[in-house]
Amino acid sequence: AEVKKIAVIAGDGIGPEVIAEAEKVLKKTEEVFGYRFETEHGLFGGIAIDEKGTPLPQETLELCKKADAVLLGAVGGPKWDSNPKELRPETGLLGIRKELGLFSNIRPAVIFDCLKDASTLKPEVLEGTDLIVVRELTGGIYFGEKFRREGAHGEEAVDTCVYNVQEIERIARQAFEIARTRSKRLASVDKANVLETSRLWRETVIRISADYPDVELEHILVDNCAMQLLRRPSSFDVIVTENMFGDILSDEAAMLTGSIGMLSSASLGEGAFGLYEPVHGSAPDIAGQGISNPIATVLSVALMFRLTFGYHDAAEAIERAVKEVLDAGHRTGDIAVDKSKAIGTVAMGELIVNAI
Amino acid sequence: AEVKKIAVIAGDGIGPEVIAEAEKVLKKTEEVFGYRFETEHGLFGGIAIDEKGTPLPQETLELCKKADAVLLGAVGGPKWDSNPKELRPETGLLGIRKELGLFSNIRPAVIFDCLKDASTLKPEVLEGTDLIVVRELTGGIYFGEKFRREGAHGEEAVDTCVYNVQEIERIARQAFEIARTRSKRLASVDKANVLETSRLWRETVIRISADYPDVELEHILVDNCAMQLLRRPSSFDVIVTENMFGDILSDEAAMLTGSIGMLSSASLGEGAFGLYEPVHGSAPDIAGQGISNPIATVLSVALMFRLTFGYHDAAEAIERAVKEVLDAGHRTGDIAVDKSKAIGTVAMGELIVNAI
Ligand SMILES: CC(C)[C@H](C(=O)O)[C@@H](O)C(=O)O
Ligand SMILES: CC(C)[C@H](C(=O)O)[C@@H](O)C(=O)O
Repeated sequence: AEVKKIAVIAGDGIGPEVIAEAEKVLKKTEEVFGYRFETEHGLFGGIAIDEKGTPLPQETLELCKKADAVLLGAVGGPKWDSNPKELRPETGLLGIRKELGLFSNIRPAVIFDCLKDASTLKPEVLEGTDLIVVRELTGGIYFGEKFRREGAHGEEAVDTCVYNVQEIERIARQAFEIARTRSKRLASVDKANVLETSRLWRETVIRISADYPDVELEHILVDNCAMQLLRRPSSFDVIVTENMFGDILSDEAAMLTGSIGMLSSASLGEGAFGLYEPVHGSAPDIAGQGISNPIATVLSVALMFRLTFGYHDAAEAIERAVKEVLDAGHRTGDIAVDKSKAIGTVAMGELIVNAI
Repeated sequence: AEVKKIAVIAGDGIGPEVIAEAEKVLKKTEEVFGYRFETEHGLFGGIAIDEKGTPLPQETLELCKKADAVLLGAVGGPKWDSNPKELRPETGLLGIRKELGLFSNIRPAVIFDCLKDASTLKPEVLEGTDLIVVRELTGGIYFGEKFRREGAHGEEAVDTCVYNVQEIERIARQAFEIARTRSKRLASVDKANVLETSRLWRETVIRISADYPDVELEHILVDNCAMQLLRRPSSFDVIVTENMFGDILSDEAAMLTGSIGMLSSASLGEGAFGLYEPVHGSAPDIAGQGISNPIATVLSVALMFRLTFGYHDAAEAIERAVKEVLDAGHRTGDIAVDKSKAIGTVAMGELIVNAI
C-alpha cells in the first residue's frame, strides 16, 4: 500500500499518553491490513510555548502541511492560562485551523452502551441518540477583527463576526453531503431573528438546499436548539452551524451523551486531508499517572481511516476491537463503575491492540 | 397606598389569555392587601404591526415610560416571521429593551415539585437546582452595527459585538448584589480565550469583585458552562453573562428544570422599574382555545411585586396560592399527566385568585 504520512501532535497533559496508545493501534493495523504509515511528531500547544516560545512553531505547521492527516492529542493547561494571547495554546489551535484551512469540525455525539447510565439524561430520552454537529471552524467571531478603543463611556472592546457566502456554501454542502449518508435530516442553526450573519447563513443554506432535495432541512434558532437538544436529542440527525454556536452546541451535545470521554472529532478542509482529535481536554489533573482513557484517541484513528484514507476495513476493526474490550468489562478509571477494578492507559491500549 | 401604574402589554398568541388571569390576580391583591394599581393596555408585537404598522408604537413606548412597571404577555408568531426586519415582533422586543434601558434580564430556573418528572434530566441530578441567569440585555452582538458588503469572496455579512466597561460594571454589580442575597456564589461566563469583549468582561468582573469579598466568584467558559449546566445544575447559584451567551444558557437552564411553562422573568434597568414576562412564548398553536397555562404570567406579577414594588407580602401570597392550587392537583393541559382532567386558563386563574 501507499505510505500515508501522519503528523502526530501529542500536545499537553494526557496528550502524550493517549497518543502513545493510538500509535500502537496504527502499527497493529499496518500488520493486520498491510497499510503503511509514516508518523512524525511535532511540538504544539503548551509544550511548544515552553520549548519554542510559540504554540504553533513553523516546523510543526510545515510537518502538518506535508502530511496526509494530523493526529492530535490534547493541548492546554493552567500553566499557560494567564499568558498573553500569543503565548497561549488556544492561539495555536486557532492558528492551525486557519493555516490548514480546516473549515469544518465534525463532532459525532453517540452513546456507548456501557456509558448509557453515565448521562445525566433519562435513558428513555437518550435512547437512539446519534447525531453529528458540523461546526464552521475558520470564520465568524473567532477570526473577525478584535480590538480595544476609547468610547464615550470609557474603554470598550470589539469583536467582529463576519461570514461570506462562499464560507457558508462550503460548510452547508458538506453538512448536506453528510446528512445524505445518514437519515437525510439537516437542522441548520442560526439566530436569524437578530444577526445579519445568520440571515446570510439562512439564505445561503436555503439556496444550497435546492441541490439536495432528498435531504429534509429545518431551521432552528440557537436558543431553541440548546433547549431541543435537551428535550429530544434523538430527533436530531445532522446539525450545521457557525463557529461560536457550534462551539457551545457541540459541547452540549457531547455532554448529554454521557460518553464525552469516548468521543472523537475530525476537522476537515477541501479534499481528504483532516485533523483528528479526541473531544476531551488535556486533563492536567491526571496527566502522567497512566490512568487516562485512550479510547477517544484510538477512535480518532478510526475516524481518520474512514474520512481521510477510506480504510473502512481497518476503521471497522478498530471500532469493533474497542467494543469487544468494553463488552468484556474492561474500564479505565473515568468510565469504571467500580473504580478499584479500573485499568490503566497502557493496559487499555494493549487490550484494544490485541483485539484488532 | 400609593397608586402604582402598570403598563400591560398582552401581545400575541396566548398573551391576551394569560394576561387576563394575571390582571385578576392584581385586582385580588388590591382587595386583600390594600395596594392600588392603575393598569393601562398598550399594543405591542405582531398585533401592533397589524394595527399600527410597527411592532413598538410610540404611544406604547410612552405608556411604558410613564409606568412604574410593565407586564408583558408574549409576542410573535409565524404570521410575522417572514416580514422585513422593521415589521417583525422581535424588533419591537429589542427596541423596548433598549428604549427602556433594561440592561439586565433575570431568569430564575427553579423546579416545581409537581414538574420534577417533566425534566429530561434524572431526578437525582436535578435535585436542589435553583439558579438565576443574569443576562446582559442591551449590549453585545445584539445591538452592534450590522451590515452587508461586497468582499473578496462575494457578498458578506457583518455583526459587531461591542461592550464598554460601564455596561459590564453595572450588570456585574447587579449579579453580585443578587448573589449576596442567595448562596453567595457567582459564575461569570465568557469566552475569554477567544473574544476581546470577553477579556474586557473578565477583567471588569474581577475588578468589581473587590467590592464583594463575601461572594465567591468563578469564571467559566461558555462551552464548558453549557456542559456543566447539564452535568451539575444544582451546583450553580447565580450565573452572569453577556447578551448572546445569556440567550442560549438561560434557555438551556430553563429547559433542564422541566418547568419551563411555569418560569417568569424580569428585565431591569437602573432603579426599581422593570418589565416582567413569562419565559414561555406566544404558543400560536393553542392560542384562543382557552387551554394555556397562566401560572408563569401570574408568577411574573409576584416577581414584579418583589423586585419593583417591594410588596413581599402580596408576592408571597401569590406564590403560596399557586403552590396550593398545584398541590391540590389542578393542572392545565401542558402540565397535566392525565390530559382528560386538565382545566382551562380561566379556571386555573380563578383557583389561584380564590387561594390568595
Ligand atoms: C480552546 C478553544 C479556543 C476551542 C474553541 O473554542 O474552538 C475549544 O473550545 C474547541 O471547541 O476546540
Ligand atoms: C426573540 C429574540 C429576539 C429574543 C432574544 O434573543 O433576546 C428571545 O430569544 C429572548 O430571549 O427574549
